[in-house]
Amino acid sequence: MSTMPNQVSLLSTDLPQYIGQPVRIAGWIHRVRQLGGLTFIVIRDGLGLIQLVHQADDGDLPHLTPDTAVSVEGIVAVESRAPGGVEIRRPTLTIIAVAEEPLPIFLGGRELDIHLDGLLKARALTLRHPQVRRIFQVQNALVHGFRQYLTRQGFTEVHTPKIVAGASESGASVFEVNYFGQAAYLAQSPQLYKQMLVGVFSRVFEVGPVFRAEPHATSRHLSEYMSLDLEMGFIQDHRAVMAECRNVLDAMLREAAGEGASDADAWPQVPEVIPVIHFSDAVAKVSRALGEDVTREPDLAPAHEAWLGEWAMAEFGSDFLFVEGYPLRTRPFYTHEDPARPSYSNSFDLLFRGQEIVTGGQRLHQYEDYIRALEQRGMSVHGLEHYLEVFRYGMPPHGGLAIGLERLTARLMQLGNIREARLFPRDRARLTP
Amino acid sequence: MSTMPNQVSLLSTDLPQYIGQPVRIAGWIHRVRQLGGLTFIVIRDGLGLIQLVHQADDGDLPHLTPDTAVSVEGIVAVESRAPGGVEIRRPTLTIIAVAEEPLPIFLGGRELDIHLDGLLKARALTLRHPQVRRIFQVQNALVHGFRQYLTRQGFTEVHTPKIVAGASESGASVFEVNYFGQAAYLAQSPQLYKQMLVGVFSRVFEVGPVFRAEPHATSRHLSEYMSLDLEMGFIQDHRAVMAECRNVLDAMLREAAGEGASDADAWPQVPEVIPVIHFSDAVAKVSRALGEDVTREPDLAPAHEAWLGEWAMAEFGSDFLFVEGYPLRTRPFYTHEDPARPSYSNSFDLLFRGQEIVTGGQRLHQYEDYIRALEQRGMSVHGLEHYLEVFRYGMPPHGGLAIGLERLTARLMQLGNIREARLFPRDRARLTP
Repeated sequence: MSTMPNQVSLLSTDLPQYIGQPVRIAGWIHRVRQLGGLTFIVIRDGLGLIQLVHQADDGDLPHLTPDTAVSVEGIVAVESRAPGGVEIRRPTLTIIAVAEEPLPIFLGGRELDIHLDGLLKARALTLRHPQVRRIFQVQNALVHGFRQYLTRQGFTEVHTPKIVAGASESGASVFEVNYFGQAAYLAQSPQLYKQMLVGVFSRVFEVGPVFRAEPHATSRHLSEYMSLDLEMGFIQDHRAVMAECRNVLDAMLREAAGEGASDADAWPQVPEVIPVIHFSDAVAKVSRALGEDVTREPDLAPAHEAWLGEWAMAEFGSDFLFVEGYPLRTRPFYTHEDPARPSYSNSFDLLFRGQEIVTGGQRLHQYEDYIRALEQRGMSVHGLEHYLEVFRYGMPPHGGLAIGLERLTARLMQLGNIREARLFPRDRARLTP
Repeated sequence: MSTMPNQVSLLSTDLPQYIGQPVRIAGWIHRVRQLGGLTFIVIRDGLGLIQLVHQADDGDLPHLTPDTAVSVEGIVAVESRAPGGVEIRRPTLTIIAVAEEPLPIFLGGRELDIHLDGLLKARALTLRHPQVRRIFQVQNALVHGFRQYLTRQGFTEVHTPKIVAGASESGASVFEVNYFGQAAYLAQSPQLYKQMLVGVFSRVFEVGPVFRAEPHATSRHLSEYMSLDLEMGFIQDHRAVMAECRNVLDAMLREAAGEGASDADAWPQVPEVIPVIHFSDAVAKVSRALGEDVTREPDLAPAHEAWLGEWAMAEFGSDFLFVEGYPLRTRPFYTHEDPARPSYSNSFDLLFRGQEIVTGGQRLHQYEDYIRALEQRGMSVHGLEHYLEVFRYGMPPHGGLAIGLERLTARLMQLGNIREARLFPRDRARLTP
């Protein structure tokens, strides 16, 4: 079994620039098919697929089993029916590492026919399937769009601690960590830190893991996921955050459309102005439509969000709908009230195809307001001292949002379960691989 | 106290494009100085400093205390002595949020005169100082250079789990997590996952937190830090990883040089070829130089690395030195031996100014080699099954590296302590803020 010669191989995505030239590539045997005197071999490299055409007079082929790693030399030629519009002719294959036969999973088909549990158990293999791998190529494009847009808007990227002293800033459960014999917790969100950093950088964002000890097994919750957070100072109210939310999502979906071209028709457009409905109007509408009074409910249930998603599409032709003004008591203590209707808040959720993918709002920015809010909720300042202190020193009106990356990806690519949008998902029952 | 009108403010970095034009900016009172009939007010916004010049006939100024948040309207003019080469004349200031007096820390000086403990305790305020904030602007540029270079080389960014089932793949201590009543751990590195993902994407990188329960308080260890990891398949040996290490560092330092311009003279150059010394030669040289026999030591002590750093500068004029071929027994089980000298390994560290900032090497890639390596070390396959399984299915020769972001930043900016290179550092004694 030979190793690679000390030359760098080209990538599948480079090949269209090398028509007529000899190249070297490296990857895995994806599919082999005989047709007349020809052997069509599809190689999967790290980014795509490459077709080789081998003729009888090109010499003997080594025994090629699926997922065996190979190095290939040959000549690039145009072939519109091949992946990427090119193929490699007169190929010479060198085996780098043989894969045992049979593979536990057949990866050579167009779709990967496997149930969720199998998909996740053999994750390091099932991720090799192009349709599975593509989920993460789209996801990376979403993150790239997020980062690039915000950087251009003067936001600074930050990395806040994931091990924190305080149990929680919201209702969701936390994971406890043994921190040198002391109790600590995994951060459920960068919320308190990103607010403190508004006082430093004015506008900040973070792309990082967050941790939720979700007790329920649902198709839309994970114990560990990537949160795309932003926080911005010097705003009038939450509407400024909603405007930035629209713009950043537009940048993200445009960036991802390049990766999702095969589904271009189904790719959603972010409207110039995303329709907005107030929470009180939303629950009234849902109550009339579903024939049950939900106007006293503190939050929208998934079925209500789903109905509102359909309504937004029917009424505005929009995949997106902002719901603003959630009841203040249902949002975290740092939420700013609506000055005109103080039992409601300057907060919002963004529904995408009838499911919440973003939550955000304006935060309190004055020390006394925090003290009052904590008192009203029967919460202690204990553990929040460092955070609260900042609000004595010139914190401007500010707000922000968090986008659940896996949830957005799953919704965008119409995956049945959020776990498919995470390389190695974690849930109550799943700690490996 | 008014809030911002619903208009977007410009950033300090935008102003040179608006000479002669009326603008609005927003930020904090950084410094106020009277000179004759003029008041010079320096505003700190999220990215830089902006000088305002207020004349007596511009009207009354409100009472301005340090770090009060303000909005300013005025006319941009060229002024070479001002930060960014421009200033704002005829300013009208509106107070957004008053900072209490006195601030616990004086932020208006060129340097922040405070001991480390104070710097970290009042972190949300001390980070506001331009010299402190600049550390993170440089750090972001380093990450941007890393990500951009690798993406262009066909690497795919990945996000691996931070909650893991297995205790450890190396000697460093781990933090235990209560995972729904079950013992789990915080990932010390993405090592096993990034290797598995070489089988998927061929070349991968990750920018993410890692966690080490470091028992010692040193100036170069943190409990939580950002690891810049890469892993690449289809290599000949560790030298291919060292070549990529040189290139990515060069890209990172070039990107950061833009942020570190004021120190341009001291900014290190990455040589076209970084000098390499074998571990056995390194310990021989150190032994001769320091007059003590360290040739039987399993690793280089900090003092030895420091001496080698000085030697590399004297001998090659290089801030960087690769030490390759560490004894196999001192490296993790997945390390590939040196085929020519099997008691040594195809591994390396990169010293920067006499301190290790990168560690890397070639990994084993064949299933049987893993089984043998684990046996020889008396380690169990238990908990490694998912990882080991991958090596049955066409894993090519591969290798990778990890760069400690905070350590690189600290070394680059000549900070006395790695804690200064982390927004909110975590160590044995420090869990807040």
